[in-house]
Amino acid sequence: MKTRAAVAFEAQKPLEIVELDLERPRAGEVLVEIMATGLCHTDAYTLGGLDSEGIFPVVLGHEGAGIVREVGAGVTSVKPGDHVIPLYTPECRQCKSCLSGKTNLCTAIRATQGKGVMPDGTSRFSYKGQSIYHYMGCSTFSNFTVVPDIAVAKIRDDAPFHTSCYIGCGVTTGVGAAINSAKVQVGDNVIIFGLGGIGLNVLQGARMAGANMIVGVDLNDSKEEWGLRFGMTHFVNPSKVDGDIVAHLVALTDGGADHTFDCTGNTTVMRQALEACHRGWGVSTVIGVAEAGKEISTRPFQLVTGRVWQGSAFGGAKGRTDVPKIVDWYMNGKIEIDPMITHVLTLEEINKGFDLMHAGESIRSVVVF
Amino acid sequence: MKTRAAVAFEAQKPLEIVELDLERPRAGEVLVEIMATGLCHTDAYTLGGLDSEGIFPVVLGHEGAGIVREVGAGVTSVKPGDHVIPLYTPECRQCKSCLSGKTNLCTAIRATQGKGVMPDGTSRFSYKGQSIYHYMGCSTFSNFTVVPDIAVAKIRDDAPFHTSCYIGCGVTTGVGAAINSAKVQVGDNVIIFGLGGIGLNVLQGARMAGANMIVGVDLNDSKEEWGLRFGMTHFVNPSKVDGDIVAHLVALTDGGADHTFDCTGNTTVMRQALEACHRGWGVSTVIGVAEAGKEISTRPFQLVTGRVWQGSAFGGAKGRTDVPKIVDWYMNGKIEIDPMITHVLTLEEINKGFDLMHAGESIRSVVVF
Repeated sequence: MKTRAAVAFEAQKPLEIVELDLERPRAGEVLVEIMATGLCHTDAYTLGGLDSEGIFPVVLGHEGAGIVREVGAGVTSVKPGDHVIPLYTPECRQCKSCLSGKTNLCTAIRATQGKGVMPDGTSRFSYKGQSIYHYMGCSTFSNFTVVPDIAVAKIRDDAPFHTSCYIGCGVTTGVGAAINSAKVQVGDNVIIFGLGGIGLNVLQGARMAGANMIVGVDLNDSKEEWGLRFGMTHFVNPSKVDGDIVAHLVALTDGGADHTFDCTGNTTVMRQALEACHRGWGVSTVIGVAEAGKEISTRPFQLVTGRVWQGSAFGGAKGRTDVPKIVDWYMNGKIEIDPMITHVLTLEEINKGFDLMHAGESIRSVVVF
Repeated sequence: MKTRAAVAFEAQKPLEIVELDLERPRAGEVLVEIMATGLCHTDAYTLGGLDSEGIFPVVLGHEGAGIVREVGAGVTSVKPGDHVIPLYTPECRQCKSCLSGKTNLCTAIRATQGKGVMPDGTSRFSYKGQSIYHYMGCSTFSNFTVVPDIAVAKIRDDAPFHTSCYIGCGVTTGVGAAINSAKVQVGDNVIIFGLGGIGLNVLQGARMAGANMIVGVDLNDSKEEWGLRFGMTHFVNPSKVDGDIVAHLVALTDGGADHTFDCTGNTTVMRQALEACHRGWGVSTVIGVAEAGKEISTRPFQLVTGRVWQGSAFGGAKGRTDVPKIVDWYMNGKIEIDPMITHVLTLEEINKGFDLMHAGESIRSVVVF
């Protein structure tokens, strides 16, 4: 079959809208008609050539929502007509990681996913006879895509595609980091570094969990209004603080925060986030993806005196189990998404979406097919 | 009154055995006759001038056991004749830290303790009219010492002093790190870096908690026999491993350990300990004290993919609550201490004890008064 898609033929070049050939789903695979897809910084990171494991040509996109149109042999978890969100973190429920009950990082198809192919080692996409790689097991910048059945979460039919697609990455990553990874509790003081899309969603998660102070830290004053809209109680612009930002935040939170979150990807900020934690019990959760080769550092004394440094990927969420719940939270008004969808674009406008992201003018741009 | 003590008049000089003047306990203070004291690397660290906060002249020693001989006004928690272990980590049960229930790092007297004085800002020790500093709130290298009442754990009367004094630091630090800080569980795979006194006690804690594999890592082959004696299941000498030690340990533990512990104080080893943790859930606990100015580093990817970096001080043990329990474990045979006490010395032989430590010839040397 044919599908219209935005293809990254090489790094640092605009995507090209072309018609691709798409093979039908093989055993254990699902054909999904993507109805909407978000544009995420991770797509931009790969497109920008910063990802040392990035491979081209590729169909980027990993934050989609759509409808199952066909299933391959043996697929029983979904059927044609089901509304789904593709999962870059699958949930096979059978690997050592899934069975541990201690992580969402399913390893069933990690190796092939990282190589841009389906679990059988081949691609379903091609252009003029040339194979085109899959991306993060999703490739949602295509009107139709093929994904493994363990990599789709079935969601309710009444969730709008152009907002619920955001749950495929940003919403779950942020809300889940607060709820699943950090396990923020009622009364906790929280500091969130970086109030982009991820930070705003951590903020929503912390608010859901009943946090006391929720301090947002951002160099851009325009983010204060965004933060306040989603439950932030205090805003700090480090460029306007006299002296050390860590000391300022520790004083503001009466000894340091119970939980801090790095949503910047900046390793200097990651250190500040750790050190702004309360002595004895503060937990700092790294969410941001750092540039290749960058490292985090601190004095071990910070850990020995009771601070914990951890990370979160996909919000610690098990895709097939937790993503449908987050869709419910959205539909029931426990979290908001609509105000964060700042731009709705056509596929032809997708490069404009990346321009908006780089200019810092969008929270989330979404392409609707 | 008078007390015989080993005094560090200055850094990097042998201790001198002298008779000091000791003031009787003031309100909230306790006079303890020290019956035995261990010699710990932390004493050597301060004596060696490596501790930037070290102050002299001082009575070192922080791992003692003894008998209460007198109490100051208002003291109700202990009475003369009680057997006690002085606590460098006190437990006031009233400060923000104690009341949090989330840390053992009581902050009630932290400021004055760090300055080498009692909570009222003065010292009880003097020599020829010159004030001598307290050390870690304990100063157990003195036959008699004065400590705050919140800094003594009452223990059972039948515990031998020359072995139970080790619970005042090394035993609790190691066993507690496994049980309280890491919360090792039945079936966990554990890697312990450094099989000195702390490492052997982490090993005992992991064994008590029902760990599966307990891998000991040490550059000194003679530690293998020690490890096996306390429950180690596998020994690895990194100098005899071809290639990367982390890859070797990850393979040995089928993907990495559930828990790793650094008992070396070496920041390079701390990184190895983190990276030898299992993806998704492995927790690395730093126990060792690093040289001043040294920092730990890693790629944030290590955290984002599910490893947790934390620390432990005094084994996460609340002194007055948990130390008596550990004494019970010892007396009931759940943990061993006797074989670790490799040298029993008189106070006059205390410098020999430090020589043995520096030469790596002791697990624990104890001075008996």
